[in-house]
Amino acid sequence: MALIVSKFGGSSVASIEKIKSIALRVKEMRKQGDNVVVVVSAMGDTTDDLIKLAKGTGNELCYREMDMLLATGEQQSAALLALTLKNMGCDAISLTGWQAGINSDAAHSKAKISGIDNQRIIKEIETGNVVVIAGFQGISPQGDITTLGRGGSDTSAVALAASLEAERCMIFTDVDGVFTADPRIVAEAQKLSQVSYEEMLELASLGAVVLQPRAAEFAMLYNVDVEVRSSFNSHPGTIITEVGNMEKQRIVTGVAHDLNCAKFALFDVPDQPGIAKSLFKALAENDINVDMVIQSAMRDNRNDIAFTIWKSDLPKALPVVRELVDKISASGMSCGEDVAKVSIVGAGMQSNPGVAAAMFEALADEGINIHMISTSEIKVSCIIDESEIETAVRALHKKFELDKME
Amino acid sequence: MALIVSKFGGSSVASIEKIKSIALRVKEMRKQGDNVVVVVSAMGDTTDDLIKLAKGTGNELCYREMDMLLATGEQQSAALLALTLKNMGCDAISLTGWQAGINSDAAHSKAKISGIDNQRIIKEIETGNVVVIAGFQGISPQGDITTLGRGGSDTSAVALAASLEAERCMIFTDVDGVFTADPRIVAEAQKLSQVSYEEMLELASLGAVVLQPRAAEFAMLYNVDVEVRSSFNSHPGTIITEVGNMEKQRIVTGVAHDLNCAKFALFDVPDQPGIAKSLFKALAENDINVDMVIQSAMRDNRNDIAFTIWKSDLPKALPVVRELVDKISASGMSCGEDVAKVSIVGAGMQSNPGVAAAMFEALADEGINIHMISTSEIKVSCIIDESEIETAVRALHKKFELDKME
Repeated sequence: MALIVSKFGGSSVASIEKIKSIALRVKEMRKQGDNVVVVVSAMGDTTDDLIKLAKGTGNELCYREMDMLLATGEQQSAALLALTLKNMGCDAISLTGWQAGINSDAAHSKAKISGIDNQRIIKEIETGNVVVIAGFQGISPQGDITTLGRGGSDTSAVALAASLEAERCMIFTDVDGVFTADPRIVAEAQKLSQVSYEEMLELASLGAVVLQPRAAEFAMLYNVDVEVRSSFNSHPGTIITEVGNMEKQRIVTGVAHDLNCAKFALFDVPDQPGIAKSLFKALAENDINVDMVIQSAMRDNRNDIAFTIWKSDLPKALPVVRELVDKISASGMSCGEDVAKVSIVGAGMQSNPGVAAAMFEALADEGINIHMISTSEIKVSCIIDESEIETAVRALHKKFELDKME
Repeated sequence: MALIVSKFGGSSVASIEKIKSIALRVKEMRKQGDNVVVVVSAMGDTTDDLIKLAKGTGNELCYREMDMLLATGEQQSAALLALTLKNMGCDAISLTGWQAGINSDAAHSKAKISGIDNQRIIKEIETGNVVVIAGFQGISPQGDITTLGRGGSDTSAVALAASLEAERCMIFTDVDGVFTADPRIVAEAQKLSQVSYEEMLELASLGAVVLQPRAAEFAMLYNVDVEVRSSFNSHPGTIITEVGNMEKQRIVTGVAHDLNCAKFALFDVPDQPGIAKSLFKALAENDINVDMVIQSAMRDNRNDIAFTIWKSDLPKALPVVRELVDKISASGMSCGEDVAKVSIVGAGMQSNPGVAAAMFEALADEGINIHMISTSEIKVSCIIDESEIETAVRALHKKFELDKME
């Protein structure tokens, strides 16, 4: 008898009607003889509603108390799904994160799972229950309720699949799987039947968040095959797996884009040790994520430094950077928010030189100017004008023949 | 430094504004140098809303899963109160029932507290925190979340006060305290400064539910002084204590009334062993609480049996009783729902004969007919016509000079 771990996100449990529809799906799996562990997120807007309530109490929202508050959302949906399954004649029991033995560190609001003490889950499976587990939450060594941060329920599901040595981990979501590009931009975009962990990680960090990066890391670490598929139809999804398991090695797997970019340039920064450190430390201390960084060739002992951040962090970042311009005696700065990032990702890229060149060529052929470039072993990213992003994505999709893939 | 356990009910935490107002009160206690443990109920209608959601899943509502669902309400209000206190500069931490070590049996939906493992609470008090505890909930020996049934938060507070050897247990509610009669009926009703545990228990079971009967039992068992007072003003309330501690012994403390009554009479029931058993067993099996029972003097080996139940149980009870009339070959039955119960309660009654006679006299003087009578050591109850209940309450209040009490 196989064990399947399934995860259903907030939109799949947004109402009792939707909970009934996923309960039918779970009951069907059970009927086929599989043991089923289900991980659920909070219903629809529950988390946002609770955050709104909490904001009414004042401006300082202690993370430990926020975790205590927010964890109730998943506990509710888990109990409601168990009630629904039982009313359909399918034995079920709900467990909170701590009841399921999901241990984490004490980094409230973004805790990391440190291990799973799965005895209770196994006991319930052996009793014949579908085990419904509240996602997104764990328990700290101090015995406090923690939450696992954005997309935490994905991580719960993958970690449980690893701990229980599940045959499959299925992440049910509102998309059909991982595509070669955003289908809203490229009509010919193909659903991938497989991607590697590394590719998924790059795609997620580049804006194509189908599986949360932390869940993908966990899957890679524990070698769990994860299938991402739609909760609204029964089409097969995309399986995220080891490169070695993949049927087909591709040079470029997909084109990703990200509009949440803003670009800073600092002019005539003195070429002294510690200058870059003080700049990026100040940004980090203000919780501003820096993505790409470019330092131009030195001229007269002075450099130009350019970097990108999330556009959504711009209001936080502007005063910090302005203050630094004076402090490090740069001659000035510029800031642009009408930029975007386009990337190609592929595990086969590392052994195929010339991929980056082909990318630059495709963009040049469309007359698109590249502001910044960043590369890793399995991706190349370019910052371009935001207005040209759709043209760029389409051109790259065509250049690497992604429409002809599978 | 004294330790105070305070409990705030659902109406006191119904909105963030109300939570802020009780937070100010808690902060004030803290400022006066006291250590404070606060027990909270769920916000306003939260519990009802969750029950409504659960009913959407089907008709069979597994108690274990309902407890899992409903316990989130108190967890939310505890976290929100802790957030509010911290935003006011008052150190605070929220704990769920299981974090607070509130152990219970496994009788889901009406679990009984079996003990409190208070180490975590004491640690948090020593750290200087106001400890906000989710009421109404505990944890079973199986590690499942339980709820303590109606008024469970009162019981949580009293049990915590006992375990922590608190100097005071204050139950903040929407009334000013315990009155000699319902002030909506008797304008001269007096607030009692003290009542004994036994009197409180009788008053609560007779319809004057200011402190839940189970909480009063707990207080009596562990000898905890409980003050019931308003959360909307700062008047002193009523202290519920041992008879021995009371400043003044009274013969009659109060007049209670209960409109939630219905009366059954079965005619010509054969006088055989086991007949009463089969009647009341059938009612108990259908979860119908029987209050008073009267069996008339035997005539021709046949009896008449009359009993009262809660009016709200009437739809459940009618088919059960009808079936029994045939089964035990009674000659017929009658059922009346236009009855009510009026009672006098007083710890001094037991050593003062003639109190019941004075009660009957007062009712007779008003021309009120008594259908049934039931007595205990510290109370006398009469079933009368519902239409005469207000007259009866006023007459008894006057007869025992309760308007002149304190």
